[in-house]
Order: sequence, then structure tokens, then C-alpha cells
Amino acid sequence: MSDLKETNISEVPYIHIFGRTGRVKQPLPLFFNGSGIEVKVTGSELWIELETDSDNLEPWIAYEINGALFGRQMLLPGKHKLCLFRCLEPSEPKTVRFYRELQAVSEDDSNRVLVKSLHTDGEFLPTESYPYRIEFIGDSITSGEGTYGYVEDTVWVAMYMSASINYATMTAKALNADYQLLSQGGWGVYSGWDNDIRHNIPSVYEKVCGLASGPINESLGAADDYDFSFNPHAIIINLGTNDSTAFNTPPFTDPDTGITHKLRRNPDESHVKEDIMLIEDAIVSFLKMLRRHNPDTHMVWCYGMLGYDLTLPITEAINRYKIENNDNNVGFLGLPNTLPGEYGAHMHPGPKSHERSAAVLTDYLRQILK
Amino acid sequence: MSDLKETNISEVPYIHIFGRTGRVKQPLPLFFNGSGIEVKVTGSELWIELETDSDNLEPWIAYEINGALFGRQMLLPGKHKLCLFRCLEPSEPKTVRFYRELQAVSEDDSNRVLVKSLHTDGEFLPTESYPYRIEFIGDSITSGEGTYGYVEDTVWVAMYMSASINYATMTAKALNADYQLLSQGGWGVYSGWDNDIRHNIPSVYEKVCGLASGPINESLGAADDYDFSFNPHAIIINLGTNDSTAFNTPPFTDPDTGITHKLRRNPDESHVKEDIMLIEDAIVSFLKMLRRHNPDTHMVWCYGMLGYDLTLPITEAINRYKIENNDNNVGFLGLPNTLPGEYGAHMHPGPKSHERSAAVLTDYLRQILK
Amino acid sequence: MSDLKETNISEVPYIHIFGRTGRVKQPLPLFFNGSGIEVKVTGSELWIELETDSDNLEPWIAYEINGALFGRQMLLPGKHKLCLFRCLEPSEPKTVRFYRELQAVSEDDSNRVLVKSLHTDGEFLPTESYPYRIEFIGDSITSGEGTYGYVEDTVWVAMYMSASINYATMTAKALNADYQLLSQGGWGVYSGWDNDIRHNIPSVYEKVCGLASGPINESLGAADDYDFSFNPHAIIINLGTNDSTAFNTPPFTDPDTGITHKLRRNPDESHVKEDIMLIEDAIVSFLKMLRRHNPDTHMVWCYGMLGYDLTLPITEAINRYKIENNDNNVGFLGLPNTLPGEYGAHMHPGPKSHERSAAVLTDYLRQILK
Amino acid sequence: MSDLKETNISEVPYIHIFGRTGRVKQPLPLFFNGSGIEVKVTGSELWIELETDSDNLEPWIAYEINGALFGRQMLLPGKHKLCLFRCLEPSEPKTVRFYRELQAVSEDDSNRVLVKSLHTDGEFLPTESYPYRIEFIGDSITSGEGTYGYVEDTVWVAMYMSASINYATMTAKALNADYQLLSQGGWGVYSGWDNDIRHNIPSVYEKVCGLASGPINESLGAADDYDFSFNPHAIIINLGTNDSTAFNTPPFTDPDTGITHKLRRNPDESHVKEDIMLIEDAIVSFLKMLRRHNPDTHMVWCYGMLGYDLTLPITEAINRYKIENNDNNVGFLGLPNTLPGEYGAHMHPGPKSHERSAAVLTDYLRQILK
Repeated sequence: MSDLKETNISEVPYIHIFGRTGRVKQPLPLFFNGSGIEVKVTGSELWIELETDSDNLEPWIAYEINGALFGRQMLLPGKHKLCLFRCLEPSEPKTVRFYRELQAVSEDDSNRVLVKSLHTDGEFLPTESYPYRIEFIGDSITSGEGTYGYVEDTVWVAMYMSASINYATMTAKALNADYQLLSQGGWGVYSGWDNDIRHNIPSVYEKVCGLASGPINESLGAADDYDFSFNPHAIIINLGTNDSTAFNTPPFTDPDTGITHKLRRNPDESHVKEDIMLIEDAIVSFLKMLRRHNPDTHMVWCYGMLGYDLTLPITEAINRYKIENNDNNVGFLGLPNTLPGEYGAHMHPGPKSHERSAAVLTDYLRQILK
Repeated sequence: MSDLKETNISEVPYIHIFGRTGRVKQPLPLFFNGSGIEVKVTGSELWIELETDSDNLEPWIAYEINGALFGRQMLLPGKHKLCLFRCLEPSEPKTVRFYRELQAVSEDDSNRVLVKSLHTDGEFLPTESYPYRIEFIGDSITSGEGTYGYVEDTVWVAMYMSASINYATMTAKALNADYQLLSQGGWGVYSGWDNDIRHNIPSVYEKVCGLASGPINESLGAADDYDFSFNPHAIIINLGTNDSTAFNTPPFTDPDTGITHKLRRNPDESHVKEDIMLIEDAIVSFLKMLRRHNPDTHMVWCYGMLGYDLTLPITEAINRYKIENNDNNVGFLGLPNTLPGEYGAHMHPGPKSHERSAAVLTDYLRQILK
Repeated sequence: MSDLKETNISEVPYIHIFGRTGRVKQPLPLFFNGSGIEVKVTGSELWIELETDSDNLEPWIAYEINGALFGRQMLLPGKHKLCLFRCLEPSEPKTVRFYRELQAVSEDDSNRVLVKSLHTDGEFLPTESYPYRIEFIGDSITSGEGTYGYVEDTVWVAMYMSASINYATMTAKALNADYQLLSQGGWGVYSGWDNDIRHNIPSVYEKVCGLASGPINESLGAADDYDFSFNPHAIIINLGTNDSTAFNTPPFTDPDTGITHKLRRNPDESHVKEDIMLIEDAIVSFLKMLRRHNPDTHMVWCYGMLGYDLTLPITEAINRYKIENNDNNVGFLGLPNTLPGEYGAHMHPGPKSHERSAAVLTDYLRQILK
Repeated sequence: MSDLKETNISEVPYIHIFGRTGRVKQPLPLFFNGSGIEVKVTGSELWIELETDSDNLEPWIAYEINGALFGRQMLLPGKHKLCLFRCLEPSEPKTVRFYRELQAVSEDDSNRVLVKSLHTDGEFLPTESYPYRIEFIGDSITSGEGTYGYVEDTVWVAMYMSASINYATMTAKALNADYQLLSQGGWGVYSGWDNDIRHNIPSVYEKVCGLASGPINESLGAADDYDFSFNPHAIIINLGTNDSTAFNTPPFTDPDTGITHKLRRNPDESHVKEDIMLIEDAIVSFLKMLRRHNPDTHMVWCYGMLGYDLTLPITEAINRYKIENNDNNVGFLGLPNTLPGEYGAHMHPGPKSHERSAAVLTDYLRQILK
């Protein structure tokens, strides 16, 4: 590695960055799963220099050459120099994508992946351009939870999550689109799966990475207002699964306020109307927030990969938003439930389920984007 | 055939009849695609005696032994004796299903398939019982249009339609359910594809077979009020595709009233709100009608196999119905659009699309029915 | 049908005939499964006039328009006028293929399918030409036995056999090839499954249809020497499965000669060498016969769809033939065994097994034919 | 990691070792792709300590928990402590397999992967037992070349090879079998792809790892005679593909002997008989060698995943071996060629091709092993 030239990540002449970033570009923080970099480079060798930290949810990363996955590994706290390729034909350009597999971590202030520099004996060439930009907002499904792991594995650990096997990545690749993910397992549009209403995605949407807290993440710009420079052609909102679960889980008392929250069912198992209204109001508000920051974007709410319980309330809210705001550039797309035999680990959608939903969503977006 | 015993169809000791029937049981009219008979019979040979009539849309029929399709053929006007099997092991019971492939025909008063008798050297045994009953209401998708035929075939003929390759039949078989179909190509919940508002399914739902007209069909009981004795566990309503098309087709002037009908788009291509309201009102009314006749049935509106254009209006109407009628036993299920390469003839869903939707719908119903 | 023009089958100006035929062209006998006719015709309607006879194995036939299967039905003894299409757009050319599903019948002298004429209001156009010609020689696998029927059906009846779901037809279609079949369930290259050595395919190969006997078939030219005018680019010989079975079945005494035949196993279950030599000699002789009549044809022996028991003896024989005759234009292709869950009726390969073998064979032939 | 207990690999109380090993058990060398260890362990955390060295072909390794792949990465020269899992439920037993992805390296004496110890806070439990043992002998196909990488990638590097996506591993897993691999890209049974006849697998078969040379590998026992303690139920020999290629490549002059080698074609493109005999003799000799060391093992030669060119000569040799040695416990299995669209990198079989061949081979072995 001694005769390779090091280039700070912010000084790489041609680079494509996936995922939201803030003011800090050197080192480059990868906040979300799917966040990463892509370069097109000649030379025989390419290394990436990183610094990571974490507690119990260690970052996993993956890398691809010319679109094919080669490596996936965990990164424990420390400085890392990873070889992304070596011994390749120097004159031939290689497209290399390196990205974070682990979702943004809301429970651990130390968690971070920082890209410092690239080392190569080749030249950087202009990267391929992506004609479309898509933003995905979601929960554990969009965090790829369970796409790795044995079907009977039930703990909740970092290695189960991914961007590499993920309907969002599959869809973006099928459309040749740039994309960014913003997702958090267990969170909802109004409430987390356990009735903790602080775990709602809208509350963090307007920050660069509102899921990452603490002074270090602050210094990386995570807490800054996001500038919404991505300007996606489409936003996919895949939320509601955890809001639905909250109807079946015990009440949660917010330690900050002392208030107890619970989404309730009637004696006949139907949802209590006022509680459904809380979710619907949250959806309407979130759509308004999304529209405010993305005036020309097609917004489509996707739902169904882990059950259809809230289909009607979600559509009710979208219809309300649509009428109240006279906004026709919004839609609902039912995604097929994960079928028996297609589950991955932790009772989450496995690869086949992600593939089918990606095919359905790709077809939908193709018609919107044309 | 001379030494076979003939039994009038109404006198077969054990028989399962698929599809709506009215007061006439001898001969037994098969009004809809999927309408048919099933017997379990010993003996070496089984024949069915039929009488059919038709104009340009000749009936096609199909037959299965022990669940496997063997034959499919057209029946031109006249009397027919069809051999359903011969030379089989006499002592072994065979389950034979014979059914109509062609949808009910609303354009030709002569069209009919009448089952007169069975001839066999075996004995009729009690038929298998079906633990579930499902009703499917739809348009050309539910009529199986295009499930037979080459992908570039574009005329509209009887041989393209089927119950044998059809998401409804696939779903019923997967659930081991009795089922009945009521469908008509080109019709909608409010308007036909060509803005002919007479072509709405609710207007014919309450008759035994409101799609079949004329004195002969009347004499067969088609015009009688249906007694709703089927009492299905679930009703699938797969309508809206033609209502959607009517926004893109020319106005239609009703020859009876002289009134011109047209579902309109705004200059920005969005649907004119009042016209959408016509469809939504029709959906609400239809759901009320369905509930009136099927008080305990789960009703699920399915939509998407040929595009998602009306997803939000349909869900808006279902939500309105649900709230106004305080009825929680109703749902919406988005079915995946037919993907490129999966079309059958006449730009309709091909076998793969029917299979995928059947898998999604089967999974949905399994959770409802348990 | 009154205003359609009848054309004797021998006078149809453009017609493609599939399968071996002899001197009789009017009416045209369809001797083998896959034997049939193809025309390209305008007009709204097309009928075919047939005469058939049979005893317990009634002929089944199928027909396709523009490559898509529409109908499949049995034909009981008598004269038939079948409508192949009606009400189609008159100006558009339709390619129609009509063919026999049932193998040649060696047990019933009466069995026959005779095509007498076509009736249409359209014009016959030149048929599509097929760049390749392929001959398939086989047993029940090539007769499509079990491709129709329920997996637990075990009797041996006509309706189980087909050319419509058959690796041979699939391969020919994939290669856009003309093809002919010569096959017989239960027969081998040396011995039938029951040690009846009269049931060997080489003994009938040189006649037009040596499987069809009796005065009527003789008058149709079945017993005439075949003129080998087909001149295929490739011959597929899919034999050996029944020779293998004969090692496991009781001895057979030939009623004509009084001689008892039995392919034997050693105490350790291996094949008795002399008996294997009988099979190998038969293979060598058959290859020589095939070569004599088809000097430039690639010959490939295919084996495996129902077990691998004779793989080594078959290749031993092919190698011997190859060396002794200095003939390099011969090969062996192992076809994958039918996997659990892929069986059709009567313990024979089902559609999936036929599809996989067709894909393997198509790939093989593509390289030979280029 | 400080509070974990380190156990030397040779002292782990229960461990399953995959792949051939020699006298050195501490550290444990992993010579071949697929070589690895498996433990069943409680505890929250498991680490593996390794030492590796290499030149241009760096080792890649992979690891699985409960049968699901989690990580795959390269190991550059040095000492490594890899975390295989952490933060898992301590009381629950986890089955962890860690294995080498890179084939044995015959070009680089330094190449090695040494397992030194495991570190865990859990207890080792008895490992699952495997009822069957299978040995795979092959070339680049069995080295999994091209199972990773983009289809247009054409250089020859370590990261393209694997045991994780490999018909051999898939077959062993489907049969719940212990297995070992012995393979080398570019090598044949008689000659390498480039006519270098030193590159023949039989010449290295009798050593522990005859492919790994030099003093270090010698000190690890690689050059020792293998004790053939594995005693497999079946040996799969998948060789011949490179022998076939040598007919199409330039002559090779052995630098040691000065002799030039070339497998030749006749003017009509057929193989020169004497050269084919060299291959056939090599096959016969190799089968005798295999039988000498594995007296009760079923031996099956598999061939076809990259073309069928030598099918007949291979079977000729097997038949000769079988007769000359009166050995019936040997077979030939044609594997399906890689179909268009199923290639991986470097014009080698991709995942779909490996899956299909694994299904065919699994079915074959199931019948042998029962």
C-alpha cells in the first residue's frame, strides 16, 4: 500500500455520494444504511480509510465492484484500512460502491462510520450519472432487517440489517437511480411498535440525521437542518407497520412527560377511532412536511410487506391530505405481504419478499418517472 | 355408451354445483365462467349431455379429473354428448369437474349452456366438501380475458376467456373453497370502459344472472331475484379498471335516454372531482347492497392488476362506506400490476400475473378465514 | 359454415405438415403424437374435417393459434368437423397448428386420425419456414405420458399423453424447428419394460409408421418403407428407460417363438454382462441404421429423465459405434432426472421436468446447429 | 474481548473440521476452499484468531451462523482477530461455520490461512453430526470461480472464487453431509487448460494438499501423504473441462523437461485419437488411485457445466475402468451446461447454474446414499 496515492475523500475529483450528508465532508459520515460512496477508478488497487465507533450495534458495511457484491463485514470501533480491490487490470476502469449496511442508530451516540480517504495507484474518472433520484423513508423493512440471518433467529442485532438485500436498493438499481434511505426499525409515522410516540419518523425528518444524537454526531452535522438539496423525483414512504403493532402491545409511559400512550382496540378488535385519527393526522402532517421540502416530487405511500392492518386508515389519510391540499402528485401502493416460506430472520421479509416488492414498486415508478 | 346409465342432472344423488343457479335445475344452466358441476364417481366411463346455443361468442368449456385439466373446447350451438373420461379403473373414485370457460354473455340472448344429464357405468359417491365459500365479482380480469391466446392477439373473442387460468379459480383451489364468479369484460362499478354507464355490475348483481337477457334466459330463471343462498365467507370485488379507462375514452350517448356520459379529466390530467364522486358513490352504494345480502361476509375490494389509477378514489369510497355504516368487516387489497412480459392476449394479465395475484389474495384470505 | 370454401387437405396451396407421412396424402393420416398440419390463413373462420377411429385408446388432439394453445379434446370414432377459430379479424393472417396428442398406437389396428379438408372464408398464405429439422425417437417420455393428469393417477390411458406439453415440442419451438416424433410408451432400444423384446423401436423405424398395424393402416401407407425425406439436422434418441426396467420385471415368453426373455441382474444387483451386451449391440445397430438413412445428421442419445441406471452401458455402446464406424457426428447428452415434486401422472415426468430437459437440450442443439 | 476465554483450536472440546487436514492441528491450516471449522456455542460473543499470508491471491473467508451467511471478506497478510458474532442471546446455542473461500493456491508458497484459537464467553456444545461424507474433486468450477463478480469481469483474482456459492457446498448442505473439496482452476485430469500437463489433479491427490508448496506449507503437513481417513460415502470428480480446452490452446513446453505438449485436433476438428487416449488413460489411472484409497466409496464423474466436448471419451474411460477392474460402484452423471444468461464472472457458471447442478447431483446422491 506504500506506493498508493492517498486522496482525502473530500478531494476525490469524481465521486458519487449516496445518502444524506450535512456540512461535514471531511471525514464523510455515512449516517444511514445505503449511505456510501461510488467511484470509477483505474489502477490495480483501491483502499478505503475509515474511522468507526459503536457500542452494541456495530456498523456493517458492504462493497461492490461493477455492481456485484464482493464483501460484507462488521467494523468494530477504531481506524480501518480496507482493501476494496487489488491485482485488477490497471488500465480498465472499475466502478466501486462502498456503503453502510446498518441503519442509523438512535440508541447509541457513539455510533458512526467516517470515510476519510481513498488510496489507489489509478486515476479517478467521472462517475456514471443517475437519471433519477429516489428517497425511501421507512422502518425495519427499509432497514433491511432480517434480510440476513436464519429464519428462526429472533434477537435484534446489527448483522441482520442491510442495504445490500433490500427492496429499496433493488428498486433503485432496477431504475438506475440515485437513492437515499431514512429508516429506523421499530418506528412509525405516529408511534413506535411499543407505543413510544417519540419514535416517529416525522420528528427526525428535517434534520440531516435526526436519528443520530450526542455531541459527536452533532459535530458531524447530524443535528443540522437538512437542506433538502436531494430533490428526489419520487419519495417512497413505507411506514405504518409499527403503528399497527402498537395496537397489540402494552401502554408506554413517556419518562420525559410521565404521560402514558396506548393505541387501543375496541372490544370487537377494531381500532378505536380516536387512536386511528392520531395516526391519520400524523400521516397528513407528514405528507405536508414532505411536500413543503419537496415541492415537485411524487410521493407514494407503500404498505403491506408485513400485513395489511392499516391499509384503509392510511389511504383515508392520504385522501384527506390530497383533497385538503389539492395535491394530485401523491399515491398509495399496496405492497404484497411476505408469504409463508419467504420470511427472513426475526419474522421480517426475506430476500424473495424484497424482490417481489421491488418488482412491483419498480413497475409503479417506471410509469411515474417517464 | 349404450350400456351406461343416464341420470338427469337434477337427480344425481351427490353433486356439487359451482356458480349461481336459479329455480331451473333441470336442465342446469351454467350462467358464468367457473359455473359447473363436480361429481365423485366410480366406473370406467362418464359422459355429460349438454345443450348450447350462441351467436358470435360461442361457449368454451373445460374439464378436470382429480384436479388436473384434461380438455378445453368450444361448443357450437346444438346438443352435445361429451365423454369426460373412459377406460379408467372402475373401482377407483374419480372427482370430475366440468365448467364453463366463457363469461356470462350480455350481448346475445341466445347464449346458454345447459347441462341435461350424466351417463356412467359407475356409482355416484358423496362429493368432497369445501370448508369455505368465496364470491368473486369483477370485469374482464375476473372473466380470465387474455389468459388464453398469443400476446399480440387483440380481437375480442370467446376463446380468450377462461375460468381454468384465472386468479379466482387459483385462489379458490388454494383455499380448498367453493366459489362463484360474477363478471363481465368492459364493465365497471359505475361505468363501462366506453362511458356506457349501463354497463355497471351493481345493476345486475341482484338477479340470478342479470347479464343474460331475453326470453330464453328468463325462462331459465336468469332474471329472477337471486336468493343469496350462497352466503360466502368472503366477497372479492375486483372492479374499477373500466371506470378508470372511461376517463380516456370518448363520450357515450345512451340511446335509451339520449343523455351523453363522460368521465372527465382536468387540464392537468387529474380526474374531475365530480366525476370521481360518481364512482365513489357507486362504490359506497354497491358495498351497501352487498352487505344487505351478505350480512356476515368479509368484503374486500381488490384492484391493481391492470394499473393503479383509481386506487385512492376506491379507498376513499371504502373508507366512507366503512365509517358511515360502522362496518369494519370490509377491506382493500392492492393487487400487483401485470409486469412487462407477463401480459396474455389482448393486453390483459397472462398466467404469471394471475398466479402472483392469486398468491397475494390467498394469503390475505387465509388470515381472514381463520 | 355453409359459405366457407372447402379445400381438400392435399390441395391446400400452402401447408406445413409435421410428422412422417407416407404415400397417402388425401386424407392425410396423423400417425404420431406431434403429427399435424400448420397453415397461415386470413378470414374469420377455419374448420377442419377429420375422420377417426379407435378402440380403448381414443385419439386426443390439440390446436394452437399464433403459437398459443386454445383447445385440447378427445375424438371418439367417427367423422368430425372441428372449428379451429371463428369471428377473428378477416384481414389478419392467423397461423394455426392442429396436431395429434396421442402417440402412435401399436395395440389397436383401428386407431387412426385422418385429416380430410379445411374450410375457410379466408385465403391460404405461404407458411412460415423452419430453418431446422429435428427428429425425436423415444418411449413414453417422448410420448408425453403423464404430462396431463394428477400425480397420483396411475392407469394408462390416452388422455395422459401429449405433444402439447413435451420436451420435444418445447425444444423444437425454442429452436424454431420443424420436428417429427417417433415414440412408444413401454418400448426400448432392445426390449420393452416387460422383457418383451418385440417392443424395440429399431424394428419399426424404417417403416412410415411401423407402430400402426392392420389392413387399414397398411392402406394408409403405414407399413411402407419410409423414404427418409425429412433429412433432419439432428436426431434425438431418448431410449433406454424401458430396457433398464426390464432388469426388474419378470421374464417374458414370446408367444410367437416360445422363447423366454429376461434381462438379468447379478446377486450383487449389477447387470449381467451378457444382457447388457444385448442392449449395447442393439444401440450400435440402431445407430448404424440411423446413419444409413441420415448420412449428415447429428445423432445425440439423450437419457436420464427417469433415472440414470444405464448411462454407462449406453455411452459404452455409443463409443463403440463411434470408433467402429469412425463417426464423430454422434453424441451423448445426460438429461436431468425428474426431481421429487416434478412428477406428472403415472410416475412420469411432469411439465417442469420437460421444461428443464428442453432447456438443456435446446442449448446443446444450438451449438450443434450453428 | 478482554473477558472472553481463549481456547486453542486444537483444544476446543467439540469442533467439526471441514476439509483435509494433516499432522498439524495447532494452528489449524485451512488448505482448500470449503475448509473450515464449525462449532456450536452458547455465549454472547465469539471471535476467531487467525494468521494468514499471501502474495497476489489473498485469502477470502466467509462465515455463517445457523446456516445463514453473514460475512465475507479478504484477509491480507498478518494476524487477525475476527468477531464472528456478538450481542447474541447468551443462553441460546449458535452453530457457527467459518471457512475459506479461496481455493488452494499452487502458485504462491506463502499462501496460507491458519486458525489459532477461538475466544468466547460461552460454552462449546457437541456439534451436529453429519450422516454422510462427500468428497469433491475438481477444477475452477469446484473452486467456485466466477460465482462472485460481474459477468463481464475477466481477470483472474481471488475474490471471484468461493465455497459459499458453489454446487458442492449446496449439495452437501442439501444432503446434510460433511464434505471436502480438492480443486484447482485451470487444472485437468491429464492436462491443464494450456497444455501444461504438470497441472493434473491426480499428481497432487495423494498428498494432504499437494497444491500448496514450499517450506512453510511443508511444515504445515501439506506435502505429507494424506491418510485418507475421511472415508467418504461418495466422491464426485468434476474434471475434464480444462483437458478439453487444451485442444484449442497453443502447445506448452515444460521448462523442466524441455518437452512440448499439445492435445491436437484433426483437420475435421475431431480430437486426435492418441491424444484422447492420453486423457482416457489418465482417467482410468485416477479412478484406480481413488479406489485404492477409498475401497467402499461410490465414485461418480460429473461433467458438463461448461460444455459437453469430452462426454464420450470420459464415459469411454469410465467404462474401461469399470470392466477392467470389475468395479460397479462407479458412475457418470452429465451435469447441465451453463445456459445463456446464467454465467457469472470470467465466463464461469453463475449462481443459477450452480443451483441447478446441485439439484441434479443431490437427487443422484440421494439414491446412491440410501
